Amino acid sequence: MTSPKHQIDLEELASLAKRRGFVFQSSEIYGGLASTWDYGPLGIELKRKLKELWWDNFVIKQENVFGLDSSIIMHPKVWDASGHTSNFSDPLVECKQCNHRYRSDQIESSECTNCGRELSEPRLFNLMFKTFLGPVEDNSNSTYLRPETAQGIFVNFLNVKNTINKNPPFGIAQIGKSFRNEITTGNFIFRTREFEMMEMEFFVPPEDDDQWHDYWINNSFEWYLNLGLSEKRLRIRKHEPEELAHYSKGTSDIEYLFPWGWGEIAGIANRTNYDLTAHSKESGKELSYFDETTKKHVIPYVVEPSFGLDRAVMALLIEGYTHETLVGAKGKEETRISLRLNPSVAPVQVAILPLSKKEILSELAREIYKNIKSSSLVKPLIYYDETQSIGRRYRRQDEIGTPLCVTVDFESLEDNAVTIRQRDSMDQKRVLINKLEDEIVSLLSNKVHG
Amino acid sequence: MTSPKHQIDLEELASLAKRRGFVFQSSEIYGGLASTWDYGPLGIELKRKLKELWWDNFVIKQENVFGLDSSIIMHPKVWDASGHTSNFSDPLVECKQCNHRYRSDQIESSECTNCGRELSEPRLFNLMFKTFLGPVEDNSNSTYLRPETAQGIFVNFLNVKNTINKNPPFGIAQIGKSFRNEITTGNFIFRTREFEMMEMEFFVPPEDDDQWHDYWINNSFEWYLNLGLSEKRLRIRKHEPEELAHYSKGTSDIEYLFPWGWGEIAGIANRTNYDLTAHSKESGKELSYFDETTKKHVIPYVVEPSFGLDRAVMALLIEGYTHETLVGAKGKEETRISLRLNPSVAPVQVAILPLSKKEILSELAREIYKNIKSSSLVKPLIYYDETQSIGRRYRRQDEIGTPLCVTVDFESLEDNAVTIRQRDSMDQKRVLINKLEDEIVSLLSNKVHG
Repeated sequence: MTSPKHQIDLEELASLAKRRGFVFQSSEIYGGLASTWDYGPLGIELKRKLKELWWDNFVIKQENVFGLDSSIIMHPKVWDASGHTSNFSDPLVECKQCNHRYRSDQIESSECTNCGRELSEPRLFNLMFKTFLGPVEDNSNSTYLRPETAQGIFVNFLNVKNTINKNPPFGIAQIGKSFRNEITTGNFIFRTREFEMMEMEFFVPPEDDDQWHDYWINNSFEWYLNLGLSEKRLRIRKHEPEELAHYSKGTSDIEYLFPWGWGEIAGIANRTNYDLTAHSKESGKELSYFDETTKKHVIPYVVEPSFGLDRAVMALLIEGYTHETLVGAKGKEETRISLRLNPSVAPVQVAILPLSKKEILSELAREIYKNIKSSSLVKPLIYYDETQSIGRRYRRQDEIGTPLCVTVDFESLEDNAVTIRQRDSMDQKRVLINKLEDEIVSLLSNKVHG
Repeated sequence: MTSPKHQIDLEELASLAKRRGFVFQSSEIYGGLASTWDYGPLGIELKRKLKELWWDNFVIKQENVFGLDSSIIMHPKVWDASGHTSNFSDPLVECKQCNHRYRSDQIESSECTNCGRELSEPRLFNLMFKTFLGPVEDNSNSTYLRPETAQGIFVNFLNVKNTINKNPPFGIAQIGKSFRNEITTGNFIFRTREFEMMEMEFFVPPEDDDQWHDYWINNSFEWYLNLGLSEKRLRIRKHEPEELAHYSKGTSDIEYLFPWGWGEIAGIANRTNYDLTAHSKESGKELSYFDETTKKHVIPYVVEPSFGLDRAVMALLIEGYTHETLVGAKGKEETRISLRLNPSVAPVQVAILPLSKKEILSELAREIYKNIKSSSLVKPLIYYDETQSIGRRYRRQDEIGTPLCVTVDFESLEDNAVTIRQRDSMDQKRVLINKLEDEIVSLLSNKVHG
């Protein structure tokens, strides 16, 4: 009954996301702020789970990866060394007639040729957000919000290496906000000015770079598969030599098939020793390790798996969105919208629904709710809901991706059992209340995709 | 043997924090950036656990609290309405002779009277970090980094209320970075320009404000006690009427006894309906709920428990720091430094230590390491360490607060048992390898403070 031709569009997605509390437009009561978004009660839980699963896979499960949380505002020299101060900056000119702004290196080909062509002097436009430290707003006190979390890792290479007392191979990972003052934003939460990244810099002996690059490409791809993204909507795309960033020897993107086409959801780059060399030069510090075999100081190469958290959220919402036509008892057609998220990322795992508001039922239902909530075996976010008809409550839970609904009915008072309804199959199953916890644990361990 | 008179000073704390990978000075290879800090491999795990425990207590365990993650850069009108644009701003003047800057409203009493007193025109100094959206750096495009997470919650009040379909009492909580361009910073990570907050705005019917205020003061105090802060170093201090913020009807701080004296680690304010009223006026939107009993639209009151995450980290490090003089077998005195963190917040829960590097031992030790690491019952961050003498390895684990060390020795090959050593008592206990997991789970559930 699932209609496979229904492809969700971005407006539909943004509308569901707002209605159900996944994503709101930022500062909406003030007309919003372009391309800035806030995560609502369900969106934050989805993000929290994604971050936890990422950290589990890339830090906790690894023996040689260590976490870091560097500050968003760093010393301006960090951005001089990394090349962001000069390379991340474009000169813009403004047409005095039509007020449009153009990158001055692209002015020849622009449509401004129709206007008076009276152009302002070029002004610098750096994609980094500038701010000022201390009381005086002038350029001697200016610095930037980080446009990537990676540089915070590079400048801490020595600190971490000394702390862990190890030579490469080892990795340093961090999750955090980054900021880019993009002119062209859009596609909902795909390209925004403020976004969250999950990045790891994996430092390796230079001769082992290709081997580790392959390792982390495969590991990253696997991670997305395990989240429930389907193989047919995922691909690994190797960058052509001409599209490589200046620091990269090779980059492979993991792309997801979005409604508008393939889009990057992770990039795994071989950044060589570019960054550590640059910081070493700018800071005068030796950013290397001592190779006991060759008795030489070596600047390690770096393999960087870099994930966009907001894009991962978006891919999961699109992947899970399912539009079905159901035929009811009297032959009446009905639309069912559900979000087929893996239980591991679903914001709410279980909803407890008493069939009616009658006290005799809600008393039992609340007892069940409290027991599961305080259980040490399952730690799901669960909802208690007793408003509206049971059918409407099922639909509401379907739309937010809750894998299991537990319905408490009048029979429950007799048979000490409740009904578990599964989101995807809509199968219902009668379960004894004293077996409920085990049954929930078992059902939640299933995945949508094998 | 614990010497209770030894009070850690901030230099000692910062040195331990750096040496062991809790906290590094930000951008250190470039000489650092004043009052900005990065969290290392152990610091980030401590922070992650604190955040998780906070979220568990204030969101997951509650039935009426919902999460949010609003953006750091919001519409500038948010700060006009909240009063930050005008009230968070001081005019500064500069003495042309000595170059010192002063708040112009305090110039009379300052030491500048010794100089030529040739003062510059006052320049505005707002404690918010200013930045610019879009390509042109002028004031029409300026906005600010948020100085508190609270306003992101207020402007989303309607969005969340519509999503959850409830009237107050309910709360909205969020954890995130905030930024204040402080002139006076210091005390290590106590007062910094970039910091992380854990905040909740709990919306209540106006007549219930005092009752909920008390409830959240007690709940917040309990939360800190459960982390392992001792009752004698914690207090609740009610603000005097003259120190209340303009929006507050009453505020109680939770204070911790730091080496320099009592300092705030959380504040629980009754913000009344000040913020929602202000945003309602500025935005033209009705930010209220409809009371079915009185048939009136009501602007709820707000009780705000607000926690500084970095300060919580600092309090835990100070509380746990223990300095002992041990007398060895030959009467030689030795200093032992340990970090008595509750297992629930210790960055590393278990260290697996083979007595020697001999392959026959490390094989068994690595097997034990992998089994515990992949166990579903315990999910501890565990270390495997085979360098240096066992005594030095114990000391290293003591210093980072690891509650349990598991030592694999040659006898283990015979008796299939290992030694568990506890951090605080230094008690050692022989445990069968096949009972190790259960024993670890049981020991980790103990707390330092009852």
